[in-house]
Amino acid sequence: MQTLLLGPDDVDANTPLAAVIDAVEGAFGAYARGDVVMPAKSYVDLPQYNGDFRSMPAYVATNEWDAAAVKWVNVHADNPEKYDLPTVLGTIIYSDPANAFPLSLMDGTHVTRKRTGAAAAVATDYLAVDDARSMGLVGAGVQSYTQLEAISHVRDIEEVVVADVDEDAVQAFVDHFSDRFDVRAGSIEEAAHCDVLSTVTPVEEPLVHSVGEHTHVNAIGADAAGKHEISDDILLDATLVIDDYDQCTHSGEINVPWSAGVLSDADLHAELGEIVAGEKEGRTADDGVTVFDSTGLAIQDVATAHVAYERARENGAGTDFTLVGTDV
Amino acid sequence: MQTLLLGPDDVDANTPLAAVIDAVEGAFGAYARGDVVMPAKSYVDLPQYNGDFRSMPAYVATNEWDAAAVKWVNVHADNPEKYDLPTVLGTIIYSDPANAFPLSLMDGTHVTRKRTGAAAAVATDYLAVDDARSMGLVGAGVQSYTQLEAISHVRDIEEVVVADVDEDAVQAFVDHFSDRFDVRAGSIEEAAHCDVLSTVTPVEEPLVHSVGEHTHVNAIGADAAGKHEISDDILLDATLVIDDYDQCTHSGEINVPWSAGVLSDADLHAELGEIVAGEKEGRTADDGVTVFDSTGLAIQDVATAHVAYERARENGAGTDFTLVGTDV
Repeated sequence: MQTLLLGPDDVDANTPLAAVIDAVEGAFGAYARGDVVMPAKSYVDLPQYNGDFRSMPAYVATNEWDAAAVKWVNVHADNPEKYDLPTVLGTIIYSDPANAFPLSLMDGTHVTRKRTGAAAAVATDYLAVDDARSMGLVGAGVQSYTQLEAISHVRDIEEVVVADVDEDAVQAFVDHFSDRFDVRAGSIEEAAHCDVLSTVTPVEEPLVHSVGEHTHVNAIGADAAGKHEISDDILLDATLVIDDYDQCTHSGEINVPWSAGVLSDADLHAELGEIVAGEKEGRTADDGVTVFDSTGLAIQDVATAHVAYERARENGAGTDFTLVGTDV
Repeated sequence: MQTLLLGPDDVDANTPLAAVIDAVEGAFGAYARGDVVMPAKSYVDLPQYNGDFRSMPAYVATNEWDAAAVKWVNVHADNPEKYDLPTVLGTIIYSDPANAFPLSLMDGTHVTRKRTGAAAAVATDYLAVDDARSMGLVGAGVQSYTQLEAISHVRDIEEVVVADVDEDAVQAFVDHFSDRFDVRAGSIEEAAHCDVLSTVTPVEEPLVHSVGEHTHVNAIGADAAGKHEISDDILLDATLVIDDYDQCTHSGEINVPWSAGVLSDADLHAELGEIVAGEKEGRTADDGVTVFDSTGLAIQDVATAHVAYERARENGAGTDFTLVGTDV
């Protein structure tokens, strides 16, 4: 038997965002129904290399499909400078849950990027006002592109405001999207008063201090204890939705005010999966500001890897290779 | 950058047992010195498929090398009958710890097999009598072959006795080794009175009830709660060495008497790494029976994957493939 090798271009070509959003929504619903197995991430901390590895295994069963995979991903902050490599590299082993055969080995970079955009899109679909037309981005890095691409699948975004201290990054973003959106550089406050806002920065000191009356915020940047993009006042007043209780209270947008006792269980409206599964309500007429705290779950990677593998097989993409022995 | 793909034959050809034993010994020493990072195995239990996945990440630093990897491995008991696939399949991602680039993706089957044999060889080297000449095997499956191959690297084994209820398996074993050893079929009791004994069965009811006066036993079979090959009397009288406290008390040979309160901390002589690192003694003149309880550690896989990768690169083996994107 052969394992399908999918490099970065193959993964990218076979993970159309509409399909990824659909699969990620399915995974969140399965999570709420208890139809996933997702152990906590395992960390291999290597302070001598200013880096760490994370092992993220999971199994997901929706009504349409089930799938299992592990993502082996890292954060090595010195990589760009020392090795001309990205800070984050990911590799995924995608396996048949029925017999564990490794169906595919694939690049994890596009999977990580798209599953993060897809989660924000799912949250936005349930939490933003129906007629949202404007989107703000705080941070103009790679994930900002994916946020706009993904969210424009669930709302008819016309106007885009992007804020970043790096003017070149802002200009590149504007240039990239100017054919499709009314896109311009703006202040953080301008971005934060759009109908939808995604914050995608690694800051530890909040930089968003006021938002629009009905803005839906996707807080994407915080992924470690101490990180925090949105001021506590906004979080306290908002309808707060998280992706996972343990991960968010430990390392998500809410972790700092949580540790300080500013936020507690009573301030949390729901996990996203509960809304997808219909157990909790999404936006209602009474809601003003909504915030989705996204830390990124292994089930999102499994769902996205599922899309990549199935589409690649359909399209005859990738390279077959006998990596694993199957002699009984 | 390219990732080196190593299929089963490439891994087998580039993991000579002498080198694997050396690397695994190094890993055990590093473990005792605190120079490894090894989170607990994560289990993804799938009772609906009568199977599970295990994610085993680790980092090892010896004086000569350091390495990081994750093994994604499973136990699906119905595989041979339902899918004509092995019960256990393994895939390893072997990464540069300095920058996390995935240096190699490799078959984990031979790695698992050889690292298990190598651990027994390391234990035998420290715990068997110096002039051990006879070896017994209880169980004639695949791992029994590796046990004999590995242990014959650390002792001059001449006489071999193999016991198994499957007569065809015994005959195949005898035929395979008859050129190199004085090998014959025998009873469990005969096998257990050799200088070295390895037990490699999945039983839950002990089948070894007496051993020789100075036999060293490698108890390999038990890898889950409830499994147990050696009678409690033997374990109580022996100098007991384990690979890892948490794993052995939970799922190793000692787990059943441990849970029953028959064995406790006072009955444990050492972890193998402590002996390798010189912190505890190996066999002394006073020792009679010694038992090594092997559950299998992620650091053994990392050490063996290290050997496979380095040798394969030296030998120009394997297939280079651009699996992971490295655009900064």
